[in-house]
Amino acid sequence: MGSDLGPPATVAGAAAASLHDRAPDLLLVGDEAILRAELSRHPHAKDRIRIVHASQVCAMDASPRDALERHPDASILVAARLVAEDHADVLVSAGNTGGVTLACAQSFERLPGVGRAALGAVLPTERRRGEKNDPFGLILDAGLTLEPTADDLVAFAVMGSAYSRVISRNPRPKVALLSIGSEPTKGTKAIVEAHARLTKHTGLDFLGNVEGMDIPRGTADVVVTGGFVGNIVLKMLEGVSDTAMRLAKSAKEKRLRYAAGLYLLGPALHRVREITDWQQYGGVPILGFDRLCIKAHGRSTARAVTNAIKVATITAQSDVVGSIREGLSAG
Amino acid sequence: MGSDLGPPATVAGAAAASLHDRAPDLLLVGDEAILRAELSRHPHAKDRIRIVHASQVCAMDASPRDALERHPDASILVAARLVAEDHADVLVSAGNTGGVTLACAQSFERLPGVGRAALGAVLPTERRRGEKNDPFGLILDAGLTLEPTADDLVAFAVMGSAYSRVISRNPRPKVALLSIGSEPTKGTKAIVEAHARLTKHTGLDFLGNVEGMDIPRGTADVVVTGGFVGNIVLKMLEGVSDTAMRLAKSAKEKRLRYAAGLYLLGPALHRVREITDWQQYGGVPILGFDRLCIKAHGRSTARAVTNAIKVATITAQSDVVGSIREGLSAG
Repeated sequence: MGSDLGPPATVAGAAAASLHDRAPDLLLVGDEAILRAELSRHPHAKDRIRIVHASQVCAMDASPRDALERHPDASILVAARLVAEDHADVLVSAGNTGGVTLACAQSFERLPGVGRAALGAVLPTERRRGEKNDPFGLILDAGLTLEPTADDLVAFAVMGSAYSRVISRNPRPKVALLSIGSEPTKGTKAIVEAHARLTKHTGLDFLGNVEGMDIPRGTADVVVTGGFVGNIVLKMLEGVSDTAMRLAKSAKEKRLRYAAGLYLLGPALHRVREITDWQQYGGVPILGFDRLCIKAHGRSTARAVTNAIKVATITAQSDVVGSIREGLSAG
Repeated sequence: MGSDLGPPATVAGAAAASLHDRAPDLLLVGDEAILRAELSRHPHAKDRIRIVHASQVCAMDASPRDALERHPDASILVAARLVAEDHADVLVSAGNTGGVTLACAQSFERLPGVGRAALGAVLPTERRRGEKNDPFGLILDAGLTLEPTADDLVAFAVMGSAYSRVISRNPRPKVALLSIGSEPTKGTKAIVEAHARLTKHTGLDFLGNVEGMDIPRGTADVVVTGGFVGNIVLKMLEGVSDTAMRLAKSAKEKRLRYAAGLYLLGPALHRVREITDWQQYGGVPILGFDRLCIKAHGRSTARAVTNAIKVATITAQSDVVGSIREGLSAG
């Protein structure tokens, strides 16, 4: 029910996902009448989709905590309970990030050794990784834990590594702390302490610190940072790409010569745009609980929702939570 | 004596600056024999340049504090003392940032109301500003104060506004706090508190919070943040530009079509490169003291040094320190 476009996008995305080879079984949670009406508009695999009614929806613009308290039968809470009670393997939502995380926290258990949850986000990098030459690196936390402790950063490193192994088919992801210099003494207290502990961690390929320029380069497969910095980094990359597009458009309109140049570069620019298109990725993980949640962008179109379901299916088929548990106890 | 290229670059840059219209009087501080030899290689205005001997130089790669203690006659300390004692109006250095800042702290007085110094850095933005349509915005702190308090952030806002007024000829620069949402409650404790205080500040055009995407867009003329985030942001922008250059180069080599496209876009790309070329800017201010210091990039070429001297001349001719004092007491 959540997301900016609401059921028309989420249901259409789920319907399309149900038709894929090796599609998962899908539970759609929300207002039954609305979901049924939307579903009837799209071709879908009937035996793969079931609707679970939830009598409430809650807008979470103001305070997600208050909104959820006042709506105990909100679709996001019902969906999280279904996962917690083993009726489903993974939660997918395009709703408000704070609200989705709170719903997870209410129904799921935090893993031993995890103080606070992290949102993983993907970003395009120059260097590629894993069996499929994945052009996406992982950065976490992307906004849940603004000022993490050293313990939090260590847990983020373990969780990111486990997730990256699965999603990029990369047996030994390179993990690094984002800081302001490569020396182990550079950065905030929490970073310096986390650096010392990660150096001794046996279950990780820990590179040490990376700096700002290493983010687009993709020096590390998993960049570990606090939620404040992660959010700024991600939104800035989005902004740089938007600004570049606007400048290109205005150059095109101003001079024929530029229009011709951009035309010739078309296929290369198309490839760059493809890589910087978050919709192709669809969803990113909320990590730290004994159950998985894939958070789709609030602006998700049907295509983005279909892709989020794909990501969720891959993570559900591999034991991401098990390898996080293992990494945390190896620490 | 400092910087990666050393006296060949700094002296050549100073020599070129001495030939400009309205060139300032220049004191070159360091090993007299070396400086004199370098100076003799370049045309310069003899009556505008004087050499002041300093018997020591200190490499500051390890610990600037130790290095300066062991070298009381280091060129950077001698130069800072000359400024403190009114023999010069502004200090220019391309040496190690930590060392330069310590030298300032030893000889200059911190302004009342300033807890910690800030390094201002410039970055190219889509939106322009001021009388000369300046494409550069200011961000501070760029690395001196990793985790500022609310008091620090308020002082940074005042200092950045005063500097931007002078350097961009922009009578009322828009100042904003970098955060993870526009609401006054978004961000870390220090940011939320600084937001409340800046809203009431009468001497500033305070926009509120801006987010990551506003940095390349240039929504604010002065972006206020902590040194950790500022450093990451600046290095990431550098990295994005490097990555884009490498991708363009490889596209050019791979297909004739792309080479032709890039050729046609040449003038536009040249303009972008010009704007993202830090050498044209040359130097950025260390703010918070009763004297000014312009810090040039460690990799400064002669051209960058000349431009840093230009920036220093402009700031010395306007009463930046006076307007910072005023802003701090208006707070």
